[in-house]
Amino acid sequence: MSEGKDALTPLPPGSTIGILGGGQLARMMAVAAAQLGLHTHIFSDVSGPAFDVAPRATSGDYNDQDALATFAAAVDVVTYEFENVPVAAADFLQLKVPVRPGSKALTIAQDRLREKTFIADLGITVAPFAAVDCTDDLAQAMRAFNAPAILKTRRLGYDGKGQQTVAPKGDHRAAVSALKEAPAILEKRLEFEAELSVLVVRGQDGATCFYDCPRNYHSAGILHHSTVPAGLPSSVIEEARTIAATITEALDYVGVLAVELFYLGEPSVLAAGKSAVSLVVNEIAPRVHNSGHWTLDACAISQFENHIRAVAGWPLGSADRHSDAIMHNLIGHEADDWRELASQDGACVHLYGKRQARDGRKMGHITRLSQLRPKS
Amino acid sequence: MSEGKDALTPLPPGSTIGILGGGQLARMMAVAAAQLGLHTHIFSDVSGPAFDVAPRATSGDYNDQDALATFAAAVDVVTYEFENVPVAAADFLQLKVPVRPGSKALTIAQDRLREKTFIADLGITVAPFAAVDCTDDLAQAMRAFNAPAILKTRRLGYDGKGQQTVAPKGDHRAAVSALKEAPAILEKRLEFEAELSVLVVRGQDGATCFYDCPRNYHSAGILHHSTVPAGLPSSVIEEARTIAATITEALDYVGVLAVELFYLGEPSVLAAGKSAVSLVVNEIAPRVHNSGHWTLDACAISQFENHIRAVAGWPLGSADRHSDAIMHNLIGHEADDWRELASQDGACVHLYGKRQARDGRKMGHITRLSQLRPKS
Repeated sequence: MSEGKDALTPLPPGSTIGILGGGQLARMMAVAAAQLGLHTHIFSDVSGPAFDVAPRATSGDYNDQDALATFAAAVDVVTYEFENVPVAAADFLQLKVPVRPGSKALTIAQDRLREKTFIADLGITVAPFAAVDCTDDLAQAMRAFNAPAILKTRRLGYDGKGQQTVAPKGDHRAAVSALKEAPAILEKRLEFEAELSVLVVRGQDGATCFYDCPRNYHSAGILHHSTVPAGLPSSVIEEARTIAATITEALDYVGVLAVELFYLGEPSVLAAGKSAVSLVVNEIAPRVHNSGHWTLDACAISQFENHIRAVAGWPLGSADRHSDAIMHNLIGHEADDWRELASQDGACVHLYGKRQARDGRKMGHITRLSQLRPKS
Repeated sequence: MSEGKDALTPLPPGSTIGILGGGQLARMMAVAAAQLGLHTHIFSDVSGPAFDVAPRATSGDYNDQDALATFAAAVDVVTYEFENVPVAAADFLQLKVPVRPGSKALTIAQDRLREKTFIADLGITVAPFAAVDCTDDLAQAMRAFNAPAILKTRRLGYDGKGQQTVAPKGDHRAAVSALKEAPAILEKRLEFEAELSVLVVRGQDGATCFYDCPRNYHSAGILHHSTVPAGLPSSVIEEARTIAATITEALDYVGVLAVELFYLGEPSVLAAGKSAVSLVVNEIAPRVHNSGHWTLDACAISQFENHIRAVAGWPLGSADRHSDAIMHNLIGHEADDWRELASQDGACVHLYGKRQARDGRKMGHITRLSQLRPKS
């Protein structure tokens, strides 16, 4: 099925949205779809939290074309909850059923080198970077940066996994072998004042809307909490949104895209011959995003619902929020405090139904709301 | 399993809540339970909208004790989405697993005569009523009322089904036979200024909280829309809440209870020897209620979540609302306009996933939010 004239015909209630991946993001998308009278069918290599709330779920290998074909025949459109779905699976599915966001976003987002190159080619500033395939590459790039940097595998890795900090006079060979000689990218470490993300939704008709930008606080490479409003100058938020819009346009994107940025504070020149900038894109995620979980409680229409609306070809809903919010992730055994958390006034408790708490595993989140101040 | 000392130990995430009934109320309860990391298991005589979002669902007869026993063994607590669950089923389950709200609320709420008598015995005003088992009973009661009245079957019937309007000089025999000679109750028709409902939640520890009272507008016996705030004097709201609290206490109730009332405006004397009143209880529903659907969008914690919290022995969440709201039911083919409704700014769309639209069938609802005015 190709995306032809019918691409703008919204899928009616009763249609089925296929979701690749069975974790908490798929779970929250499935619930959002159900609210709109849409069915979901999860396809995942392992059983996960989404299996409990979706009418249909398949455990299958992403490389099993028979299983993918059966899945494609049972759904009207496919989306995904994570950017590491094998591109071959998305390409295979795309021959049979629309995949949104498409495989272009996937191809770019799952390779950090390709992602940085793509964004830089749009005229958007990213941290100085270099491809690293061996110790010599690393040594050469470190000489050029002459500053602390982070070596990351080009593929896979999330929540700080697959990353090594490298000092100018550090042990380059050790860093490369810590990543098991995997193709990598070296990124210059930047001093920044704040981390923020843009949550942008783009519909099939190109209509775009933005949630308020959260300010994000990481700990040990994992998102710890996000706050809205971000408490940053409105000119910064506007610029961040413009950047995100440029990226979604270039990808002909459909759905929620998250763009993570560093705000440097005072504008800085990051590389010789470049203008001073105060915003730098760190990475993009072609999916609903952890830094947007507060939208479930602080907005009438969450990022999950708007992603489903976009993917199903529906009109987008308002991204306005009615409250200020702080979203805290519950990592590992933090979720064991559910009873205490549930008794806190104004805490919205979200638990993902994972059977086992492990260090660093996202088990749930809490959103604390406070009333919007009247506009004066 | 009896309700002993452990009654106040909340069920931990991963526990299973059994729900009798598989319609949209069960569906919205199942989604709320999932958010808290709780599983649900639906038991219903027919497959319905809840089957799509619950990890387990059983189609079974409410009179099949083997099926009920299997269900009871698979769940940690049982609740229900409608008051016409056979009391025998609830009683049977209660021997094996806690049933909340208990069978007392069920027994009372499923018999209109018993319900009115129970409420009146608490010193709360209801419309003048009389038991009607035959045409003679009806004639006698109509002579006493000397005013238009409504003949309702004592059992079953909802959304205006099983009801007949009776005029003082009407055909009594026809009215009785229209209800197929079923045991009935005659209620004097009251002139009222407004209909409102109280949505009260009571926890296992007796803690009680109230959502804002919606004002309800019916059409052809079916709830058409509800608005919050109700636009009624605060003294009326306070009195309505006191009435609801009295009822929940008397039932030793756990969960959400809806109390539907008529506000008469000027206080009236309804029966000789009684004081003038301005609030009259119409009926109670021992469950989450259609007039509380706006809480999904206008409150951080919905009636569904608070019902699940109460049933699971969790602390109740705040019932505060962040926005004003109007909730419109989508009846029958009104839901066919989903595309237009989804494009309306500020409309939160809820579709129940029912396969077939029929006249009078609730297919979904829309909540329209408007920002709370700052308190001045």
